[in-house]
Amino acid sequence: MDIYDLIKRKRGGGELSGGEWGIVVKGYMSGLVDDGQMGALLMAVYFQGMTDDETAALTDVLVDSGETLTWPDGPYVDKHSTGGVGDTVTLVTVPAVAAAGAKVPKLSGRGLGHTGGTVDKLESIPGFRTDLTVDEFRGAVEEVGCAVAAAVDVAPADHELYALRDVTATVDILPLIVASILSKKLATGAHGLVFDVKYGAGSFSGASEDARELAVGLVEGAKRAERRAAAVLTSMEQPLGRAVGNALEVAEAVECLGGGGSEGLREVASVVGGVMLKVAGLAGDADEGREIIEEKLDDGSAFEKFLAMVGRQGGSADLPAVLPKAAGTHEVPTGTGGYVQKVDAYAVGRSAVLLGAGRRQKDEEIDATVGIEVLKKAGDVVEELEPVFRVHYNLEGRLEQALEVLDGAVEVGPDEPELAEKVLEIVE
Amino acid sequence: MDIYDLIKRKRGGGELSGGEWGIVVKGYMSGLVDDGQMGALLMAVYFQGMTDDETAALTDVLVDSGETLTWPDGPYVDKHSTGGVGDTVTLVTVPAVAAAGAKVPKLSGRGLGHTGGTVDKLESIPGFRTDLTVDEFRGAVEEVGCAVAAAVDVAPADHELYALRDVTATVDILPLIVASILSKKLATGAHGLVFDVKYGAGSFSGASEDARELAVGLVEGAKRAERRAAAVLTSMEQPLGRAVGNALEVAEAVECLGGGGSEGLREVASVVGGVMLKVAGLAGDADEGREIIEEKLDDGSAFEKFLAMVGRQGGSADLPAVLPKAAGTHEVPTGTGGYVQKVDAYAVGRSAVLLGAGRRQKDEEIDATVGIEVLKKAGDVVEELEPVFRVHYNLEGRLEQALEVLDGAVEVGPDEPELAEKVLEIVE
Repeated sequence: MDIYDLIKRKRGGGELSGGEWGIVVKGYMSGLVDDGQMGALLMAVYFQGMTDDETAALTDVLVDSGETLTWPDGPYVDKHSTGGVGDTVTLVTVPAVAAAGAKVPKLSGRGLGHTGGTVDKLESIPGFRTDLTVDEFRGAVEEVGCAVAAAVDVAPADHELYALRDVTATVDILPLIVASILSKKLATGAHGLVFDVKYGAGSFSGASEDARELAVGLVEGAKRAERRAAAVLTSMEQPLGRAVGNALEVAEAVECLGGGGSEGLREVASVVGGVMLKVAGLAGDADEGREIIEEKLDDGSAFEKFLAMVGRQGGSADLPAVLPKAAGTHEVPTGTGGYVQKVDAYAVGRSAVLLGAGRRQKDEEIDATVGIEVLKKAGDVVEELEPVFRVHYNLEGRLEQALEVLDGAVEVGPDEPELAEKVLEIVE
Repeated sequence: MDIYDLIKRKRGGGELSGGEWGIVVKGYMSGLVDDGQMGALLMAVYFQGMTDDETAALTDVLVDSGETLTWPDGPYVDKHSTGGVGDTVTLVTVPAVAAAGAKVPKLSGRGLGHTGGTVDKLESIPGFRTDLTVDEFRGAVEEVGCAVAAAVDVAPADHELYALRDVTATVDILPLIVASILSKKLATGAHGLVFDVKYGAGSFSGASEDARELAVGLVEGAKRAERRAAAVLTSMEQPLGRAVGNALEVAEAVECLGGGGSEGLREVASVVGGVMLKVAGLAGDADEGREIIEEKLDDGSAFEKFLAMVGRQGGSADLPAVLPKAAGTHEVPTGTGGYVQKVDAYAVGRSAVLLGAGRRQKDEEIDATVGIEVLKKAGDVVEELEPVFRVHYNLEGRLEQALEVLDGAVEVGPDEPELAEKVLEIVE
């Protein structure tokens, strides 16, 4: 069977068998299928879609392309976020769930586009190592109860495919997103999986219906692979917490882990963590799980677990004092007083990238110290000329670029706005 | 403007400007646009199409990628065939039109898939050179009145793009076919262009409606570029002549140039040549043009012009005696007697390729001597066990493969069949 015929069949709306998806992906990794053919096939998938069987087959082939981890019996549970702005949920939820008795083996990515990545955030802690070997990762999970490391060895074919999708306008294709996310989670091997699927202006999915479709695809795909699974639809209209930028977000996570921090972050972290406990069999339902997580945040045990994890991975435990700081800050005032109607998460995320918190180009060095504090959020009351953002910066030129993007990112009006639900729905 | 945004716009059904098509093609030639991006863009064009302005812009960019020829005032006229089986029209029409007083600068291709190519056919004449430089080509046209050479220096970007389309299932896309054909013809510079567009089982277009759409696209594109143009829709249900294979087809063309040969070849060559004379302003209408061509075939002047062309390009004039011959022949009988209902042009073409008349893989050497004589055509009466094909072969193994494909290529029935129109329509 020739790759030409497979492209042509998909182009015509036909289905590829599991074996044929194997030929495609293995051929791509070995060079028998070239970039042109894969680009054409991915674009055909954009127009013709994939059946559930095809998505499952592609997922399996991606899993098989690299390391696969297995774990002993017992509640090993993992989470994935589709990406957001000021979204520090992993840093709070992972140790809190571990404090409640589950094991959490979490492989994470770096920042992508306007959104941050957990690996970048943790690396702002002096000494923290994310480049664990598989054995180191396994040891840390068993000893501490949780570990967060860079996902370098799992699903390498997904990595190759993603790099191609990223330059060929074929990223936003549902079955490909499902296969990509699931392949990494299945390869990591946890028995339970929870997906935090973002909707709203600052998310990749955008509309809540698209996010729901993605959530259903992920949960069904995980169940098909015999995992316990659920998804939480959470709002990304405005930044989730009050901090956007790597060290700033770690500082906010530390606050939240000690029972404080911004309301939005605490709520989403508790709900996602609660669903993880339910999936792990450590809570009867999501509400009970949420209560357990809040307890672990308030009694200090979640923070203790976080410090143990940081210490095990080589980081300094003197948190937040040890976090690096930017040279200067600059406050951005509103023009008029009233109720904050919305804070544009996409603009805030883009602005943070321009400051140096994310990468404008592949392999660019990032600056851990810079970012944006969101002082006012939707529903808050502001006076005329009151600051709404505090920008942390190192270079004047980058500050200027960041301020341009922030201009107009906050909308103020006379009436109290209706707020988007932070947690819209749990998909099981 | 980033290539990513251009792919995304086309994916969404939008239009690219002329400048943007320039960025795409120049970027592809320089390596800034990679195979993956071009493959994805071409597949998006399959689903979303192109506007007439886009097709014209792409054509221009392809023309500008290489040599462009210009000619003095006077009737310079060129032809293009979309490809067929046993289609020796060029070898007959080009010298006949030149004998009637027009100049014919003809750049040709090699065989593609199951169809033959004029360059391959002419190279079966010992000594014949198709690799003329631009200056040699120009000199031959001016001195003899016609020349046929390989299209190596015109529209190199089309060559690159075609190679990619050929492996990514993006060949059969109307606007890309139009831009590809037109770019080579416009770069060759003749003032008048006639397109022989094939329809039927042995053609690339297949259905006559698709062929008509292609004919209209070619004629309108040529007129937009200020050329006089027309197209002829001709049937490729069964092989056009009675010979399929390089030296065999040259022998048949020689017969036709001397006033004999198969009826199908003579008819289509005369009609296409007649339309060329009309486009060149040397005939009042297509019928008058056809009469002039038939006259040139019957009075020996077309053959004389052919011999002059062959001589000018280094070939031996002792035709057809000098043509190489295969080692063996094998006759294929029918199972039953009756009327021949049809002869499958595609199967005959594929069978000839397997004998060695065409390339199964890029850059494969071809065998000039092998091929198939079609002894009976649709409408002919056959007796039980009467031969319908005479296969010319050199290797027993290849003969076997060829016979397998020929099996069932002829259908015989009790009733006289309705025959497809050899010339369906002239599009102007």
